[in-house]
Amino acid sequence: MKACRQALLLSSSNCHGYSFLEFAKQEISSFLKKNGVTQLIFVPYAQNDHDDYTKNVTTVITPWGFNVAGLHTYPDPVKAIKEAKAIFIGGGNTFLLLKKLYENNLVNLIRERVYTGNLVYIGSSAGTNVATKSIHTTNDMPIVYPPSFDAIGIVPFNINPHYIDNLEKDTHKGETRDQRINEFIEMPHANLVLGLREGCILHVDGESLVLKGVAGAVIFKKGESKVEYPVGTDVSFLLNN
Amino acid sequence: MKACRQALLLSSSNCHGYSFLEFAKQEISSFLKKNGVTQLIFVPYAQNDHDDYTKNVTTVITPWGFNVAGLHTYPDPVKAIKEAKAIFIGGGNTFLLLKKLYENNLVNLIRERVYTGNLVYIGSSAGTNVATKSIHTTNDMPIVYPPSFDAIGIVPFNINPHYIDNLEKDTHKGETRDQRINEFIEMPHANLVLGLREGCILHVDGESLVLKGVAGAVIFKKGESKVEYPVGTDVSFLLNN
Repeated sequence: MKACRQALLLSSSNCHGYSFLEFAKQEISSFLKKNGVTQLIFVPYAQNDHDDYTKNVTTVITPWGFNVAGLHTYPDPVKAIKEAKAIFIGGGNTFLLLKKLYENNLVNLIRERVYTGNLVYIGSSAGTNVATKSIHTTNDMPIVYPPSFDAIGIVPFNINPHYIDNLEKDTHKGETRDQRINEFIEMPHANLVLGLREGCILHVDGESLVLKGVAGAVIFKKGESKVEYPVGTDVSFLLNN
Repeated sequence: MKACRQALLLSSSNCHGYSFLEFAKQEISSFLKKNGVTQLIFVPYAQNDHDDYTKNVTTVITPWGFNVAGLHTYPDPVKAIKEAKAIFIGGGNTFLLLKKLYENNLVNLIRERVYTGNLVYIGSSAGTNVATKSIHTTNDMPIVYPPSFDAIGIVPFNINPHYIDNLEKDTHKGETRDQRINEFIEMPHANLVLGLREGCILHVDGESLVLKGVAGAVIFKKGESKVEYPVGTDVSFLLNN
């Protein structure tokens, strides 16, 4: 099956120096227009207050020229996704989000519809984590137990959103982000991790992957040193690893 | 069943200003001596290199007057734990640790032996997480999928080790530790979380819980503001919440 997938995977919705989603406005707008989308279903499952979360996103995106409706307002989520042309899965807690997607039988459905070119996908933070192979590289606290860590798999590798070096204070002895990612990389089921800095967007266009937005990304591979890539880099080679 | 449990739950093995485990030397030594223990089994499952990890711990603890052997050196871990008087479960990755404990059928066994007063328990970081009700409040990355987040349950609440306020840089938009813990507290299955600052030790002596070490702790409860408690506080009330 040749992949017709169309996806924008944002590291986060917030980025220092920008208002909520502002750094991604141009990318989201041109991506949706290019795909002929005017109507968007927002998936607020990563947070507890679905109404409030959907309202915050709608307030920002509607003025860009798109209609937004929360998935939680549809009586049948499966039917809603089957009829949708585009979804935006927002950030929050990745475990909460993935559990809810499984409970509503949406994981396989979203994967199938994205791969067959029938559903355009935008994800941010937790919404980006669930778009990858698995949620093994989320930064979130495991507040609920999902039936699996396997995720939608729009890309066949793992992403670490909100990627940052040297997060911790020097006197704090908790592990650094790089140590955590390298712990994962050592596992037999791990291959590579794309660390998206806040402000970075991975644009997935079929077999083409390009770094967009206002910040770059870092790639961690088994047995190799991490490598930094700036905005604009074609990282399609990640599909062949 | 009246709890005869004897446990020392360390926030971490490393603490700023001290060498490995040094801040806990007096507490560990007097705790083991009081319980008539001279032989200790070290459980290195939270890290990949069991030999190396056990060697590092042995090098520090042997001069204190205790014999240490790695659990991985015993052909039958269940038999080893059944015959052990004391264990020390070290830190690393909580998911890796809990999965390995389940694989080796040790979770229920350790719980039973601790509650009947036949096994003295020392845990640090991930080893403290697995000693609680569940691992929902670990800081670690979910690098493997354990069969459950339920843990040994020596205490009937959750602990966040390496607790710190305002970890992130001001310009970073990832969630703070307090936001993450409060996300958990909102869940129906959550009750309270004890955040152990690095250098803090929870001493469990039957029905008595006391904060020891060189730093205090913070308690998060549903619908309440967090409360700070200094070293020396009797927090036995946590058993009645």
